[in-house]
Amino acid sequence: MPSAEDSLISRYFRPLATDPRAFDLTDDAAILGSSADDLVVTTDAIVEGVHFLADDPPDTIARKALRVNLSDLAAKGATPAGFVLTLALRAPDDAWLTPFARGLGEDAAHFQCPLLGGDTVSTPGPLMISITAFGRVPPGKMVRRSGAKAGDRVAVSGTIGDAALGLDRLKGGAAAALGGDEREMLIGRYRVPQPRIALALAVRDHASAAMDVSDGLAGDLAKLCAASGVSAAIYAQSIPLSGPARELLSSGAVGIESIVSGGDDYEILCTVPENRFEAFAGAAMLAGVPVTSIGTIIAGIAVPRFIDGQGTEIVLPRLSYSHF
Amino acid sequence: MPSAEDSLISRYFRPLATDPRAFDLTDDAAILGSSADDLVVTTDAIVEGVHFLADDPPDTIARKALRVNLSDLAAKGATPAGFVLTLALRAPDDAWLTPFARGLGEDAAHFQCPLLGGDTVSTPGPLMISITAFGRVPPGKMVRRSGAKAGDRVAVSGTIGDAALGLDRLKGGAAAALGGDEREMLIGRYRVPQPRIALALAVRDHASAAMDVSDGLAGDLAKLCAASGVSAAIYAQSIPLSGPARELLSSGAVGIESIVSGGDDYEILCTVPENRFEAFAGAAMLAGVPVTSIGTIIAGIAVPRFIDGQGTEIVLPRLSYSHF
Repeated sequence: MPSAEDSLISRYFRPLATDPRAFDLTDDAAILGSSADDLVVTTDAIVEGVHFLADDPPDTIARKALRVNLSDLAAKGATPAGFVLTLALRAPDDAWLTPFARGLGEDAAHFQCPLLGGDTVSTPGPLMISITAFGRVPPGKMVRRSGAKAGDRVAVSGTIGDAALGLDRLKGGAAAALGGDEREMLIGRYRVPQPRIALALAVRDHASAAMDVSDGLAGDLAKLCAASGVSAAIYAQSIPLSGPARELLSSGAVGIESIVSGGDDYEILCTVPENRFEAFAGAAMLAGVPVTSIGTIIAGIAVPRFIDGQGTEIVLPRLSYSHF
Repeated sequence: MPSAEDSLISRYFRPLATDPRAFDLTDDAAILGSSADDLVVTTDAIVEGVHFLADDPPDTIARKALRVNLSDLAAKGATPAGFVLTLALRAPDDAWLTPFARGLGEDAAHFQCPLLGGDTVSTPGPLMISITAFGRVPPGKMVRRSGAKAGDRVAVSGTIGDAALGLDRLKGGAAAALGGDEREMLIGRYRVPQPRIALALAVRDHASAAMDVSDGLAGDLAKLCAASGVSAAIYAQSIPLSGPARELLSSGAVGIESIVSGGDDYEILCTVPENRFEAFAGAAMLAGVPVTSIGTIIAGIAVPRFIDGQGTEIVLPRLSYSHF
């Protein structure tokens, strides 16, 4: 006589809990066994209407919930070890849960980050998915935000701004001018981030500081600089942009602030000592992840400056997304 | 120029993150260092209007969010090692956050379970607090649900049913007949569970299976029996009751099903081999936690039976709380 909640767990999530440490989700807890590595722990939640839209495909919601956490692990130089899931639902809806669980299971398998446990609760409010993810690094090797030094290069992976433009498009904004394929690319970047797990080892081996870009490049760099007690000069023209983002920017449809203060990039922002940069770029290339040098760490405690092609500082009305 | 979100974290939660592994909440992740112990991971969320009431005192909400997780750790025989917090808020309200953070900090210190990290997000819906807690046990020593054997005693800590009666009272139900102090006791049991951390070592040393009672004794025992492939016979008259619960039951104001199928007890339910029971009871006494033998594990796969003083099986309309 299992309850509806037990049935839900058993039907949708037990098939995902293939790791023996998850005990088929039939216990109160999972075990992460002893290890010589440090265990890196990160937690990120996504809320309907805030981090995703109610009509986003359910499998993309699941993937985003896991991937925003994997992005944190990658930025810390960690290898995924598993995750626990809290899912707050209004009602168990098969048409939603089936693709949600499928997307989650596919990503867990793909990124070798098994589901270890969780909690399913009812809510009268918006859907919410909270994931706590675990990764491993050799002892003492987690890459902090606080290690940047004056003279270090500032680098980012991939391209910046696409996800914010994709969200803007979903809300009917500027990207409307683009063709269908380009719009879909931007929307895909918003819905399904690409966690840079493949870059974790290069970051661990070469970066002096790192974090993922989740709330906007400008604001996140300001956090990294504050944690490191430094400032930075960023050359806006060096910021890597996708074709559609470049098109929107050059046509004047969006300003640079939409690119550098938008959120949801889930790229890695890191600082690398000048004499390590070539090795870092080489390791990134081998890992198949493009990285671009966008500026330099400088002494001081000023908020990082973004400089345009004429050498003029760009005034940013806000640095990043804030929940409140 | 920190965002409102950063200010919120820094104002209310940084003072709680006294553990060096939390990096003052200025990084993306925390570290749980290597250890010869197994790391036990559990996650439980509480939702406004479901697990707590909107007008519950904020410090009790914080305590409950942490304690329901500590209760899981205790039932697994684990010692608390830390936790991460996801807090979904409609707006940052100082009058709510100040006592919330105070209650959380006091409990974290009291139970030696430091805040290691978290995520604060906005929601248009109900408040939600999701905690993932970590504990340690010697390798292979986590107490599972699956080890119960025919002939084992079934034991519970503390008293059963108080929290469900407290919630009933808050909703204007049967407990209205009680005096003020007794009502307050029941309400306190609903709002602020007492995690049986002190009993963890006795459980680890002597129990063949264990879990905490969160959704109701009958349903949770059924889960333990299912995981162990056994059944049980429970003597309703042996179930430990508080004075107020006994009064309500004997006056007929509530039935036994309210006691055994209500939720939120957060007591430990465990099975102990007959030849270990005396040692278990002795260790529990030394730990200052009352434990009571309420029945016996029997062979079979039937749902556990609850038997009244006349030897008649009690029919339970439902076994436990279910979210759906």
